[in-house]
Amino acid sequence: MSKLNKLTATEAAAGLARGDFSAADLMQACLDRVAAREDDVRAWAYIDPDKAMAEARAADAARARGEALGPLHGLPVGIKDIIDTADMPTENGSALFEGRRPNADATSVAALRAAGAIIMGKTVTTELANTNPSKTRNPHNLAHTPGGSSAGSGAGVADFHMPLAVGTQTGGSVIRPASFNGVYGLKPTLGLIPRGGTLLQSHTLDTLGVYGRSLEDLALITDNLSIPEPQDPQTYRGGRGSLMAALAEPGPSQPRFAFIETPAWDRADDGAKAAIADVAARLGDACAKETPPSPFDRILELHGAVFAAENAHYYGGYLRERPDLLSDKIRTRLQASYDIPARDYVEALNEREVINEAIEALLTRYDAILCLPATGPAPRGFETTGDAAFNSPWTYLGVPCVSLPRLTVDGMPLGVQLVGGRGAEGRLLRTARWLDGFLA
Amino acid sequence: MSKLNKLTATEAAAGLARGDFSAADLMQACLDRVAAREDDVRAWAYIDPDKAMAEARAADAARARGEALGPLHGLPVGIKDIIDTADMPTENGSALFEGRRPNADATSVAALRAAGAIIMGKTVTTELANTNPSKTRNPHNLAHTPGGSSAGSGAGVADFHMPLAVGTQTGGSVIRPASFNGVYGLKPTLGLIPRGGTLLQSHTLDTLGVYGRSLEDLALITDNLSIPEPQDPQTYRGGRGSLMAALAEPGPSQPRFAFIETPAWDRADDGAKAAIADVAARLGDACAKETPPSPFDRILELHGAVFAAENAHYYGGYLRERPDLLSDKIRTRLQASYDIPARDYVEALNEREVINEAIEALLTRYDAILCLPATGPAPRGFETTGDAAFNSPWTYLGVPCVSLPRLTVDGMPLGVQLVGGRGAEGRLLRTARWLDGFLA
Repeated sequence: MSKLNKLTATEAAAGLARGDFSAADLMQACLDRVAAREDDVRAWAYIDPDKAMAEARAADAARARGEALGPLHGLPVGIKDIIDTADMPTENGSALFEGRRPNADATSVAALRAAGAIIMGKTVTTELANTNPSKTRNPHNLAHTPGGSSAGSGAGVADFHMPLAVGTQTGGSVIRPASFNGVYGLKPTLGLIPRGGTLLQSHTLDTLGVYGRSLEDLALITDNLSIPEPQDPQTYRGGRGSLMAALAEPGPSQPRFAFIETPAWDRADDGAKAAIADVAARLGDACAKETPPSPFDRILELHGAVFAAENAHYYGGYLRERPDLLSDKIRTRLQASYDIPARDYVEALNEREVINEAIEALLTRYDAILCLPATGPAPRGFETTGDAAFNSPWTYLGVPCVSLPRLTVDGMPLGVQLVGGRGAEGRLLRTARWLDGFLA
Repeated sequence: MSKLNKLTATEAAAGLARGDFSAADLMQACLDRVAAREDDVRAWAYIDPDKAMAEARAADAARARGEALGPLHGLPVGIKDIIDTADMPTENGSALFEGRRPNADATSVAALRAAGAIIMGKTVTTELANTNPSKTRNPHNLAHTPGGSSAGSGAGVADFHMPLAVGTQTGGSVIRPASFNGVYGLKPTLGLIPRGGTLLQSHTLDTLGVYGRSLEDLALITDNLSIPEPQDPQTYRGGRGSLMAALAEPGPSQPRFAFIETPAWDRADDGAKAAIADVAARLGDACAKETPPSPFDRILELHGAVFAAENAHYYGGYLRERPDLLSDKIRTRLQASYDIPARDYVEALNEREVINEAIEALLTRYDAILCLPATGPAPRGFETTGDAAFNSPWTYLGVPCVSLPRLTVDGMPLGVQLVGGRGAEGRLLRTARWLDGFLA
């Protein structure tokens, strides 16, 4: 039983369904791991082992009574601490919200509970899901950052505290921690996972995403989180197929990949450049280098304008009213962007559609875009959480991204990032499955 | 035949269908009126009488051949000169666009032609559809402004040059000229009429609207213009019923009206205030004064932020590259708003949804909002086109507005404005029909 915490979520769900072990067994294994490692990894902002165990036992009792069970019944899930929970604090990683207890679950949390998941606890976020590093460490080397802002979600899944976790990405906060911590991560299309009850920093960018130990895990949890939220103007309005069903379909027998260096290429480590170039080389004719037309070359600046404009709106009140409760890092960043002219923001919103058209045209010729998920492996030290420059372009476009934990550079994990078209998670995951097998 | 140009569009369409007169007869009557009055009224930026007559004769020939005819077959329509026409210049009222000939019709123009309408010519707009007055004069008193920016469309219909015209509203550019010139005007829900091929000054505000001689006329032309344009993120995405059919349905036997003074009340003339208060008083129990909750009190400022931000983006290039081709008035206005902070714009976009929710709640208790369409009748002189403060709130909210030419103040026309819920043009027009009869 001691290795139950290492199962994928899909394996764990099957084992629970077969009666191989109980939800209490699974939770105990996870909590034992937390007890053994939390002092070092520091993945949790809040966790109450007794409550988690009581919920696991209640899940077992429900199963014993023959109640109708959801697809996530009895599975422990970690929730980033900017996502509201009615029964646990939600402090947004900030002194501004110390001791805050929401009145209600976020829509995503309610959806997970409805599917039977057990909210195991709240995972550490950087301050206000921004760039000021958190207390969490990288389980692969405790002297390295786990990335951010979804630090505890990425590190906790990587360190086998729980099989699944939820995070958010506004720049690179889902995919970068996935890469740094060596786990599978999915940032789906903007608005696929509902955002109600989640701290807002930028409504055009904020996207909920998930961590797991396999592509099936990502599909399983995303299927149970994919719900329209009509009151959110950014909710995804296209069709929503089952990603589990999509993964069960045959994929392209030989998918084609567009390798895009992106405008951040010069910021990448040599080791990371060599590793992704090697993947592209191994793919041979199935991969071609592409450079989307201008204004793709300006995409980092365009993302920055959207972030600065919306963040100045959502966080401006903190800056004006309680600057003493903000870190120097976030205060300086907010001040620098506080007066960004609206015309730059309008341009950035408009160019987003222009670039998305080019990306959609590209994806008629390729199954996915291949690129680095980060400038390199997790940096040593805790001065920064790393650079989001390989993530923010895709966050800006609102397109789905997946990171596969298939590379190692300097003894630390590095992911392979695949990017798909808006609303085309199914095709992206099928293509990712092929590449995951190819690189295994 | 000399009075054919005074028919409503609906009457003219019926007369043409019955064979009482030909499209050539109708066009000749309109052109005769233009010849007699254009030197005074100056409604036209471009008109080619020979071309218009040739098209009218072609329309008659098509009818004689028994071809399938659209609902607007043979009806002359004036098109504001910021809306592209492939066969006539489109100069946007600006030296920047002198001699410009578009390659293609705007979507709205193509839709009108497909329905059989004859594009009679291009009507005068203010410079770039902004506030710098045009050459057009008010036909009720040539010493007064016709309003703007859709100056020629409003004045031309009022002066019987044509039965129908198309304009645009970003502040008050459809409803104010309707009120000042004493014609029926409809600014429908944002995005109901497609905007492709129309000069953009603010994508959140720019709304095409129509002029006619009766509510049926407004319904007739709007029905033939109401088409989704998916490539425009602002296209109206709700259901689109026929407004002609809606007008044929029984309306509320005793509609209820919410009289809203709006934050611009102090800017209105005493005569206008008294006139609209008298309408409210005559309605008795069917009308109650309402004041929507905050931030409605800030709605003029919120509209201003959206306009400034988007206009700085769309017109910023003119200011930077060819300031010499801009009037002092528009240059000064652009410079003043050029650096508006993005955070104010984000706030204004967000508050829009908050206020719309309050308006929608109000419209569960009332059939329409009653308010002034302008601060008073058309001002004497040509220094300004009047104040848009009674229009810009509704443009900002994207809700439909209609102006009924039912009041007179100081010997000049003044409309009665009714406002409805987004996408609820049918209910608004039925309610307006009741009030139009009540005030007749």
